[in-house]
Parts: sequence; structure tokens; C-alpha cells
Amino acid sequence: MKLDKNNVFANLPSVLPDEIFQTLVHTQHVKIERIMSYGHGSEAGFWYDQDQAEWVLVLQGQAQLEFEDKVITLAAGDYLNIAAHIKHRIKWTTPSEPTLWLAIFYS
Amino acid sequence: MKLDKNNVFANLPSVLPDEIFQTLVHTQHVKIERIMSYGHGSEAGFWYDQDQAEWVLVLQGQAQLEFEDKVITLAAGDYLNIAAHIKHRIKWTTPSEPTLWLAIFYS
Repeated sequence: MKLDKNNVFANLPSVLPDEIFQTLVHTQHVKIERIMSYGHGSEAGFWYDQDQAEWVLVLQGQAQLEFEDKVITLAAGDYLNIAAHIKHRIKWTTPSEPTLWLAIFYS
Repeated sequence: MKLDKNNVFANLPSVLPDEIFQTLVHTQHVKIERIMSYGHGSEAGFWYDQDQAEWVLVLQGQAQLEFEDKVITLAAGDYLNIAAHIKHRIKWTTPSEPTLWLAIFYS
């Protein structure tokens, strides 16, 4: 088996025209994703509505997640568990540094 | 739905007689665990031999994971994917600060 460590903070681009989604693990029941944002947010009117639950952790930076009834601000270390089909969108990520997320989609 | 953020770095005890394992998410196919170590290692001769794969990330501190054929040192941000039934043990965690892990067990 390949047993190589990697670092979640490595290879953060200094210019990020679009968000980057990097799949680290993917099986039938779980996907672990590393997401890099840099001032990005979801497009106006766009909402995620997912069949799987999502556990999300901000590793670096700052973000605002919008739900139908509230906005939650996340800074480094903050995590949130979002049940399936809870509509949400990225309202804002800080323009002052890359925001690095770890997202775990699971059923 | 409860939508409360928490912080992985919060409530790190300053004294830690034993490792603490905190389950954050648990379904049939996935378990997300926050683990706090402070100079702890696996007992001599003990090896983990797990039915599920494990994706592990060190969020703070330093650790050495021992495998049958090598030792891998992990610092903050380092992650590793360990397939099911790959025997491993915690050889060492730094005594100078708490080591905080995120472990995702999945099938």
C-alpha cells in the first residue's frame, strides 16, 4: 500500500481565479474534499442541496455560510455538520488570504 | 436541524492523563473522531488492525505513526490515508504540547 503523507496547507496557490476542489478520498459512502477559496462565494441565487450530509471544517481563512434562516461565520478551526438537503451557500470568503476547507460528505 | 458551529481547537485540556477520543459524527459507514494526545503512545506491543480505512490529519502538535515497515512523522497539517487492516500504532506524540488529531474511519 502507498503510505505517503501530504500536508493540507501545502501548494496553496497565490492566485486563485476559481475555487479548487481536490478529492482526497472517494468511496461509495464518503468523500473527503479539500477546497481552496480566495474571496469566492456561491453565485447569486445558487444553493447547495445535497443528498449526503456534509461535515465541514475551516482550516485557514474565514467564511460565511448562508442558510435559509441564518448566516454562520467560520474561522480557522470552526466546524459544522450540515444534514442532507439543508440548503446552504457560500455567502463570503475573506479576500485577505486563501480559505482552506476540509469537507466530508457522507451517508 | 441543529446548526451549531464548534471549534476543533477549543477545550484542549492542559492536563491529559489519558488520550481523549471524541466522536463528532457516527453513521453506519463513517466515523469522524477528534483525538487529543499529550505525550501518549500506544502500549508496547499494541497494534491497531481495523476493519475500516482511516484518513488521519494532525491539526496541532507532532506524532510518529509506526507501521510494520516504517515510521512516519506527522506535524500540523500532515495527513495520511491508512487502508483497512494496515497495522499501525502510535509510536510517539510530542510531550511539549497537546497533539490534536482528526480521524475519519470509513468503508
